[in-house]
Amino acid sequence: MPVYLDHAATAPLRAEARDAWLDAQSAVGNASSIHGAGQNARRALEEARERLAAVLDADPIEVVFTSGGTEAVNLAVKGLWWAREQSADAVVLPDGEHHATLDAVEWLQAQGADVRHVGLDEVGRIGIDAFGAALPGAAVATALVANNEVGTINDAAGLAGAAAAARVPLHLDAVAAFGHVPVSFRSWRGSAHGRAGLVAVSVSAHKVGGPVGVGALVVSRAAELTALVHGGAQQRRLRAGTQDVAGAVAFAVAAELAEAEREAEAARLAGLRERLVGGIHSSIPDAELLGDPVDRVPGNAHVLFPGASGETLLFLLDRAGISVSTGSACQAGVPEPSHVVLALGRSEAEARQVLRFTLGRTTTAADVEAALAALPEAVERARAASGPRTARAS
Amino acid sequence: MPVYLDHAATAPLRAEARDAWLDAQSAVGNASSIHGAGQNARRALEEARERLAAVLDADPIEVVFTSGGTEAVNLAVKGLWWAREQSADAVVLPDGEHHATLDAVEWLQAQGADVRHVGLDEVGRIGIDAFGAALPGAAVATALVANNEVGTINDAAGLAGAAAAARVPLHLDAVAAFGHVPVSFRSWRGSAHGRAGLVAVSVSAHKVGGPVGVGALVVSRAAELTALVHGGAQQRRLRAGTQDVAGAVAFAVAAELAEAEREAEAARLAGLRERLVGGIHSSIPDAELLGDPVDRVPGNAHVLFPGASGETLLFLLDRAGISVSTGSACQAGVPEPSHVVLALGRSEAEARQVLRFTLGRTTTAADVEAALAALPEAVERARAASGPRTARAS
Repeated sequence: MPVYLDHAATAPLRAEARDAWLDAQSAVGNASSIHGAGQNARRALEEARERLAAVLDADPIEVVFTSGGTEAVNLAVKGLWWAREQSADAVVLPDGEHHATLDAVEWLQAQGADVRHVGLDEVGRIGIDAFGAALPGAAVATALVANNEVGTINDAAGLAGAAAAARVPLHLDAVAAFGHVPVSFRSWRGSAHGRAGLVAVSVSAHKVGGPVGVGALVVSRAAELTALVHGGAQQRRLRAGTQDVAGAVAFAVAAELAEAEREAEAARLAGLRERLVGGIHSSIPDAELLGDPVDRVPGNAHVLFPGASGETLLFLLDRAGISVSTGSACQAGVPEPSHVVLALGRSEAEARQVLRFTLGRTTTAADVEAALAALPEAVERARAASGPRTARAS
Repeated sequence: MPVYLDHAATAPLRAEARDAWLDAQSAVGNASSIHGAGQNARRALEEARERLAAVLDADPIEVVFTSGGTEAVNLAVKGLWWAREQSADAVVLPDGEHHATLDAVEWLQAQGADVRHVGLDEVGRIGIDAFGAALPGAAVATALVANNEVGTINDAAGLAGAAAAARVPLHLDAVAAFGHVPVSFRSWRGSAHGRAGLVAVSVSAHKVGGPVGVGALVVSRAAELTALVHGGAQQRRLRAGTQDVAGAVAFAVAAELAEAEREAEAARLAGLRERLVGGIHSSIPDAELLGDPVDRVPGNAHVLFPGASGETLLFLLDRAGISVSTGSACQAGVPEPSHVVLALGRSEAEARQVLRFTLGRTTTAADVEAALAALPEAVERARAASGPRTARAS
């Protein structure tokens, strides 16, 4: 068994979620069917919706199940843009967003959207003032609750308040945050009303120990949003298709467990992360933790290893039985420098010299020690493979 | 246990598909991750893609996994329209299509698409000549391989040939056909090349005993298609998001089993259907089988009960432990007359007096006898509830 330190990519399925999936699958019935079998499926689905809504501090009717975080983000960003007021065309887009958002907005740009970019500070945080300054007259704004690469946590309520003040609909991408940070739709939305302010929050099941292929978009009742997938009256006409009852039930079970253990796990994982980062600093003194040192996803350690290719490090650690990520999207096999690291004000060279370690529910102290034992040699070899440091740093 | 005669709504999960899902879920790893755990997931995913492609007579690279049939249809219809040639705006739409198609095209109409409607004949079949006449200069054409309500099977190769001749890209919706009719992308596509002719075929897992929440769109290499869900380089950039490896594996297992038993099951189910239809004619002489009497989905019996509300019949049979469907979409709880039955040239009243029985893998002769035993009283009571026949038939 490899030491799996890539929980942000996907987390192991929880046994309770698996059992709930199996149990729900054992009953046949389409939740849109009128007969008893269909209504039983419908009840299981609506109970899952209620349980997930409770975890997210939302009303059940506000929870729209999707096929995952990426679809939820696409539904939010495109759906809000399609339903925009005629006078507004701009999308407010912070620089370090996930590719689900970046690529959806890039497509909207080709459809005629103006894009207003918002820079990040040196730890990867979205400044409320910079965000607020970009908002007036925009059609849609979007932002990460926690950055999926460097782990920095944003001020979700502050972003939502700025959007409400500017009367712009806001989507928050909580995929990387959920399970690690309290996700509270109601308190983030505050006293906003109508179609402005926070109207949508996206989450994913497999990041909290639920199955892959399941996610949700919380959509406020007053939001104006066009469906991405048409074809039926399901889910307030915001998302058509036969509903994945077993997936929804398994997601609800995983979300409840993640929320119940969140505070204890956050403390445990922060401790393991401190040991990991401290150990790295001891053996590789010029390694540098990126992102906010304190206010970050507890299990996230995003580290710059000057002079060592992240890609090479990843392969060397993998050969040593340690699974990590470079944190940047590998687009069609061509490793690109991380746009998030660039947004921190770092160079292209530095944006290729990072590794993301993400610890999670199954991570033990022994896993961290195994990574620490393997790292010095890997970094040394990666640096040697890259040639003289001075040339690399150019 | 109710007698479940609504297999077209959703079919029971096959034990082999469930076990394959469990097995795939036991390994952690995101198929887009570079490390060994990710590559193991990737291998399982690509093997599933190969196995499903073999069943569909397509190349593995042509199989794009989706969250189900509805998303596949939306990706095909909208994706082909977004990527259309500038000179073409029209969508060719037969009258009896599934709501996934109808609602997607209705939305495109609001975006500026011209819609060219094609009528059905009295058994619900799309005429090749009528279809061909609507094609010249169109941006997209779409058609059902088998009608999901009345079960009539279309001439898929004929429709594809007409589209190729007119140089129009065609999507075939094989969701209701798959598992009952041979689905052969290569032979249907024939010698078409480039972006014209048959370029896309949609299928769904839960109709063949796979899990809900999984589907696929076969997309030819030469097709020009815009993604519906953006966010990464997965699946030829046609469908972003963390790939549901376990769902794909379970789908492939279910599809292989469905294909292996298809011919024997078709004969068995056609026999059971003949018994059901014959028994209905004996006890309710004026009941009428709609759709093609021979060239139909074997397990489908779509029956008009003159003077009896289909909705009432559904409830009465449900109370007697028999699960069936009216075959029409229940839109937000308001039962509408079936647009498919209307397309057959029937009246609004008749379009509310139909029931769809769909037999499947778990259906036994005893199930059929149970339905036959319950029907006469249900029809009598439904007719009584509707008042005098002459008034109703108006």
